[in-house]
Amino acid sequence: MERQQAEREWERDPERDPEAEAATRALLTDFYQITMALAYWQAGRAREPAEFELFFRRCPFGSSFALAAGLRDCMRFLRTFRLHPADVKYLASVLPPGTDPAFFEHLQGLDCSGVTVRAQPEGSLAFAHVPLLCVSGPLLLLQLLETPLLCLINYASLVATNAARLRLIAGPEKRLLEMGLRRAQGPDGGLTASTYCYLGGFDSSSNVLAGQLRGVPVAGTLAHSFVTSFSGSEQPQVRMLTPASGQGPPRNLSTLTESWLGKVCECLGLQAEEPHPGERAAFVAYALAFPQAFQGLLDSYSVMSFQVPWLEAVSIAVSNNIDEEVLTRLAQKGSEVNLIGIGTSVVTCPLQPSLGCVYKLVSVRGQPCRKLTEDSEKQTLPGSKAAYRLYSPEGAPVLDLLQLEEEPPPQTGQELRVWPLDVSGGDCRSLTLTPASLEPLHRLYFHLGQMCEPIPSLAESRALAQKSLSYLSSSHKRLENPEPYQVALSEKLHALLESLAQSSQEGS
Amino acid sequence: MERQQAEREWERDPERDPEAEAATRALLTDFYQITMALAYWQAGRAREPAEFELFFRRCPFGSSFALAAGLRDCMRFLRTFRLHPADVKYLASVLPPGTDPAFFEHLQGLDCSGVTVRAQPEGSLAFAHVPLLCVSGPLLLLQLLETPLLCLINYASLVATNAARLRLIAGPEKRLLEMGLRRAQGPDGGLTASTYCYLGGFDSSSNVLAGQLRGVPVAGTLAHSFVTSFSGSEQPQVRMLTPASGQGPPRNLSTLTESWLGKVCECLGLQAEEPHPGERAAFVAYALAFPQAFQGLLDSYSVMSFQVPWLEAVSIAVSNNIDEEVLTRLAQKGSEVNLIGIGTSVVTCPLQPSLGCVYKLVSVRGQPCRKLTEDSEKQTLPGSKAAYRLYSPEGAPVLDLLQLEEEPPPQTGQELRVWPLDVSGGDCRSLTLTPASLEPLHRLYFHLGQMCEPIPSLAESRALAQKSLSYLSSSHKRLENPEPYQVALSEKLHALLESLAQSSQEGS
Repeated sequence: MERQQAEREWERDPERDPEAEAATRALLTDFYQITMALAYWQAGRAREPAEFELFFRRCPFGSSFALAAGLRDCMRFLRTFRLHPADVKYLASVLPPGTDPAFFEHLQGLDCSGVTVRAQPEGSLAFAHVPLLCVSGPLLLLQLLETPLLCLINYASLVATNAARLRLIAGPEKRLLEMGLRRAQGPDGGLTASTYCYLGGFDSSSNVLAGQLRGVPVAGTLAHSFVTSFSGSEQPQVRMLTPASGQGPPRNLSTLTESWLGKVCECLGLQAEEPHPGERAAFVAYALAFPQAFQGLLDSYSVMSFQVPWLEAVSIAVSNNIDEEVLTRLAQKGSEVNLIGIGTSVVTCPLQPSLGCVYKLVSVRGQPCRKLTEDSEKQTLPGSKAAYRLYSPEGAPVLDLLQLEEEPPPQTGQELRVWPLDVSGGDCRSLTLTPASLEPLHRLYFHLGQMCEPIPSLAESRALAQKSLSYLSSSHKRLENPEPYQVALSEKLHALLESLAQSSQEGS
Repeated sequence: MERQQAEREWERDPERDPEAEAATRALLTDFYQITMALAYWQAGRAREPAEFELFFRRCPFGSSFALAAGLRDCMRFLRTFRLHPADVKYLASVLPPGTDPAFFEHLQGLDCSGVTVRAQPEGSLAFAHVPLLCVSGPLLLLQLLETPLLCLINYASLVATNAARLRLIAGPEKRLLEMGLRRAQGPDGGLTASTYCYLGGFDSSSNVLAGQLRGVPVAGTLAHSFVTSFSGSEQPQVRMLTPASGQGPPRNLSTLTESWLGKVCECLGLQAEEPHPGERAAFVAYALAFPQAFQGLLDSYSVMSFQVPWLEAVSIAVSNNIDEEVLTRLAQKGSEVNLIGIGTSVVTCPLQPSLGCVYKLVSVRGQPCRKLTEDSEKQTLPGSKAAYRLYSPEGAPVLDLLQLEEEPPPQTGQELRVWPLDVSGGDCRSLTLTPASLEPLHRLYFHLGQMCEPIPSLAESRALAQKSLSYLSSSHKRLENPEPYQVALSEKLHALLESLAQSSQEGS
């Protein structure tokens, strides 16, 4: 009951997506963004050119990697960003009376025509401190965008990474079905989860709306309530069955059912009277509705207790509270289980239910800036930056390099001196390395309000994620105690960081 | 910067809520509901009268109670439920080719005009196994409603209960601000969280959209990026300040700032040169924007290290990774902290990120039915039921009673014999008690497609939650190892359960 859906056009034409409504409300932001906007405006700084970076400081779940996701939703948000008259009227009702009406006029005139976004592609491997998004534009507007961009990236990247971990555990062959809609944070939580679990490596979702709106393949079979609803007294509306091949004489359904029930009971070591007649009636009714694609349901508690050799030929689906630990066991069992349904533990990410992406100001009026903090883990890296991924001769990514945007890109085969990021705040030493190959990590997706290149389809992003993961060394890919992936600064960026640290100490 | 908003009309007129779009899509359901629908239809059972109950089997977070929430979203969903031609066309594309077109005609004709819902009011105290919703109507349609109703109730009730726990810890005086939008499961996850945290006892949310669409009071101050954006070289656009009272001569802003900075530094034991000039410029700019409602920002790491007596007169807000443990400490500190901002730990409910509500068939064609299971914790209680809450003479709820709908209601002051639910599956003994007072738990909100009474406003539901909690005994309200609240069956319901258990054993 699983069918690949053609990717839908909406991804390239976001305005046609009816779901866009909820995701693109400009007031989907924290109130302090509005109060800061007023203060910037009062100080005459609303239009100062600024740049923010969106990044996380630690990979989720103790992994050494994450998957970048949510960019498609950000693009949709930015393209349609507008404060409508009703929005501005609402803001006037919650700001102090007497706030200058010119501020509200400024808000009503805002759109993203001055905004530029460089980003890591959907489905990329992403590492701590390397920006997922670099957003530049007018200070006041960029401040308003903080919450919605974080909201759209944080959970999408978290759940895609969670799905990728489960895919790594399951191996490439098992079919993974996401079925967490009922445990998600409301309707859109469920839609986001289904979308990005697929991106992260699941095969399908139970969520029909994700199928309709986002082209995620949908799958599912039947629930207990269906079985419970049959008492056994129901008579099938069909008496004689024509073979699926169309060849041969019709067969008597009742005789067939009795004969197969007898065979199954023999295999399971049960008396033919033991199964409840309602269960038989329910499975017969279901099989009649899906003569070519029947999938039965054994209750979750008893699946594992049967050792039936010919069950191997049957597609077996399991779906009872499957987490990483249970999945590890199921993956070891070889071919017995083909389809694994996972709900709560993929959607709610219980190992770590949120990704702590932050959105930090790195330059204003062309000057690099950084947050003053005593906490070295909370440090930010100043200035507008470029990022490169360096590869070993075998094609494995070995290090992500952050440098100032004005620096020339590093060269393949040329020795580089870099400064590994030391988040523990201890002494940090430089190292030299010679990349066999490299690539820039950011692409220009949005330039002064215009999309520069289309966001790939969900299926393409899913393929990129699986391909990128396949090149990552297994020491980084290990789910428990993985070797941390190195992120380093160029000499110039490192020097800037040092000089800003020094000047802030001198200033104090 | 917090302002009480008038509750908006949308709650009584859901069609006017633009946010309804996302929440009311009929295809927001699991695919297996569709395949089961087809099988019911093929078996000629689509219109059989049925009843489902929606309940949870265990209170979340180890609490002995939960808050019922999400009904307002369910009502909106049911009132507008429709499969549009595009929806049916999509379903045809994912069901087997050759599926009878009459099935799709049936789907397209569906609406909730045959559906009736009894429910516990929004904000009620709710206990395990007592239905939050009793839904009756045609079998096929009720099956389709399973996933959306679970999705709309599960997270709303979970996050409202989480908020109520945090309110119990904080005590009634502290102001609690929900600020988790950036950590929620996408846009609507954030909107749902903000709505139901308020219902559960928070005072306000940072989420502006929740303010606009749902009338939740909004609040917030400023972020680090605002401070970071000032270098200190900025000149305020205002030189002279008029006193807020309007009386007295204008004062020189620069002189005032220096003088107050000196006083603050003296109190904190700092040299006047120590604070960064950018910080001063930022706070001056913010204060100029909010002359009557200034709220400063001390970085989270240093707030607690200062002992400054006159800071008690200042409104102090904290918001750094506050969970139940940290909140317990802050609550003990008395008056120092007035406003507590909580994000991740209220929105993601890390102690238990999902509530396991289920939706079980309890009767079909007027016959009680139950799921066959070996697992006593997963048992369901058969038949259409009524529920009553029994109170002690002091007005404290002592027991929830489930009985068959046709039984006469219990009477105040009259001795009753009841059978406490024993979820552990062990021996279960009856007990007698005499309720000092009692009330029915379910109200008829939706009868054959029509709303029977309006859902109370969010603020009214919030008040009901706080009032109900105030009557609950402290032994049940305790957050760690609370005394379980008793739920019991009437003699008749208990007898029905026994007879069904026996007949299913005899059948096997």
